[in-house]
Amino acid sequence: INKCHLMVCLPRLSRVAVCGGTHGNELSGVYLVRELLKVKKGVMEKEEEQEEEEPLSVLKVLSNPRAMQQCRRYVDTDLNRCFTHATLNGLTSGTVPYEMIRSRELNAMLGPKGRSGAVDLVCDLHNTTANMGLCLIAYSDCDWICTFILKSPIKNHIPSILWESMASVTMEIGPQPHGVARSTVYTAMKAGVQHMLDWVCFFNSGTLFEGESVDVFTMIKHIDYPRDSETRNITAAVHPHLQDRDFCPLHPEDPLFQTFSGETLRYKGNEPLYPFFINECAYYEKGIFFKFIIHLYICKHIS
Amino acid sequence: INKCHLMVCLPRLSRVAVCGGTHGNELSGVYLVRELLKVKKGVMEKEEEQEEEEPLSVLKVLSNPRAMQQCRRYVDTDLNRCFTHATLNGLTSGTVPYEMIRSRELNAMLGPKGRSGAVDLVCDLHNTTANMGLCLIAYSDCDWICTFILKSPIKNHIPSILWESMASVTMEIGPQPHGVARSTVYTAMKAGVQHMLDWVCFFNSGTLFEGESVDVFTMIKHIDYPRDSETRNITAAVHPHLQDRDFCPLHPEDPLFQTFSGETLRYKGNEPLYPFFINECAYYEKGIFFKFIIHLYICKHIS
Repeated sequence: INKCHLMVCLPRLSRVAVCGGTHGNELSGVYLVRELLKVKKGVMEKEEEQEEEEPLSVLKVLSNPRAMQQCRRYVDTDLNRCFTHATLNGLTSGTVPYEMIRSRELNAMLGPKGRSGAVDLVCDLHNTTANMGLCLIAYSDCDWICTFILKSPIKNHIPSILWESMASVTMEIGPQPHGVARSTVYTAMKAGVQHMLDWVCFFNSGTLFEGESVDVFTMIKHIDYPRDSETRNITAAVHPHLQDRDFCPLHPEDPLFQTFSGETLRYKGNEPLYPFFINECAYYEKGIFFKFIIHLYICKHIS
Repeated sequence: INKCHLMVCLPRLSRVAVCGGTHGNELSGVYLVRELLKVKKGVMEKEEEQEEEEPLSVLKVLSNPRAMQQCRRYVDTDLNRCFTHATLNGLTSGTVPYEMIRSRELNAMLGPKGRSGAVDLVCDLHNTTANMGLCLIAYSDCDWICTFILKSPIKNHIPSILWESMASVTMEIGPQPHGVARSTVYTAMKAGVQHMLDWVCFFNSGTLFEGESVDVFTMIKHIDYPRDSETRNITAAVHPHLQDRDFCPLHPEDPLFQTFSGETLRYKGNEPLYPFFINECAYYEKGIFFKFIIHLYICKHIS
C-alpha cells in the first residue's frame, strides 16, 4: 500500500486480446466474442476515431473451440491451468491433452508469454454460478492496469478486484448456470469489455490518472465440502443463509453448510472472512467449497 | 373434463420407485436418493407403522451412475428417451450406447414396463435451470395419481401439473444450475418426495378422496432459438422481460428474445400462451427454446 504521492509513466497498451470460451460452457464470453468477431469492422472504425496516431489492435479469440462445441468446461484438462512456463515450453511425449496443445497455439498467437511481441493485455471472459456480480480478477498485487479499470466510471456495479499473482485480467460474471446464456449477464459483460477498451484508448491518449481507492479482496484459503469418508461423495450443500452472499462477511458461528440429513454446520474460525465463488459448479470436482478471503482497502496515489 | 359425480375404486400402490440421477448433472435427486438409501431403515420403519397390513415397498434407484460420476446429463444418449418399447425390446448390434443398456437394466429392475410385476408408481427426480418451482409432469391425461398428489396438502408451492402422454410422474424443480446443489431446492424436493410417499400410504389405507380442481398445463408447441443460417449458432438469448417468468402469460408483441447485437424480438402469435422450461440448459442442444402451453383448469369429481 503506497501512501506517498508519486507519478509513474507507463508504456501504452497497443495490443489487447479479448478471450471467450476458455471454459467451453461459460456462454457469455462465447457469444460476446462471436458477436465482436462479426462487428469487428465497426468496432475498429470507432477505435480509429478515438486513437488517431496508432489504432488499438484488439484480438478477439475463442480460446477452447472443442470444449465450446461440446458445451463442457474442457475436453481433457482445464485450459486455464495450462499456461505455466513448464506446460508451454516442456517436452511432450505420448498422448498430449487437447488443452495442452491449444495453450501452445494460444501462446504463439498472443505471446510468447513474458517476451516482447506478446499482447499488452489479455482480458479473459468467464462466468460463475456464484452470485459474484461483475468482478475482475488480477494476478499480481502490482497490477496497475486492473486497478485503473475498476476506477474508471462504469454503470455496472463492480464489487471487487481479486488478486492472486502478467498484464492479464479475468472478468468473472455471475450468477449464471454453465451452459446457459442469460441476457442481463451477457449485456453486463458486453458493457464491461467496452468499458475496458474505452479505458485503454483513454489511457493510450496520455491521460494523467488521479489516484483513488478501490475495494480489493485477496484469497487466503479455501475449504472443501463435507464428504463421506468412504465414498468421498459430498454430504452437505451450502447453507441457505450463506448461498448467494458472496463478498458478505461470514462471522464465527454463522451457518456454513446444511447436510442432506438437515443438520446445520457452522463456521468455526476466529475472525470474520469474506467468502466468494460460493457454490461455483466447477469447484465440486476440484474439492473447493469457496475461497475465504480477507478484505483489503487499498489506496494508490500515483499523481 | 368430467363434471358428473362418480366413484372410482382403484387398486392399491404396493411398490413405488424413487429415481434420482436419471440426468447425471441434476444433483438434487442424486443427493436425495443417496440420502434415502442411507436412512432406508428408518423410513421403512415409519412406513410400517402407518401401513400395518402390508408395508409399502419403496425402491430407491440411482438411474445413471456413469453420467453421475462424470457430472453430465448423459454419457452416450439421453436415458430419459430410452424407455420406448422399441428400445427396451429391440435387437441390438454393434456398439450399444451405455444408456440403452442401462434402460434395459432399469426395466428389469422396475418393470417390465406395461406388464404385471412392474412397480405401481415411478417418481423420477429432475432439476431445471428454468424458474419452474416444484412441478409435476405426468404423461397421460387420465393419470389420476398425479392429480391426487397435487391435491393433497403440501407446504411447497406446486404451481402446475403438466401432462404429455404409465403411472409415472416426473418431479421437476428449479431454478438450479446443473452440476450444482442448492440447499433450498434439495429441501423442497425432499419434502415433495415425502409428501408423495405419505399420500400413497394414505391412499392405500382406503381413504375416499373428494374431487377438487387443479391447475394443469399441456404442451402445444415449442420453438427454437434464433440461429445463424450458416453456423447454426444461436444469435439471441431469452429476453430479460421473459427470463424467469415460467407459467406467466405471454401476450402477442411481448418481448421474446434479445439478440446479441441488442435487438428485441417479439412474440408474433395471435393468442396468449404460457411458456415454461424458459432457458433450460439442456434444450440448447435439442434446439428447443421453450414449450408453449395452453392453460387448462380441470375439475375432477370422483366421489
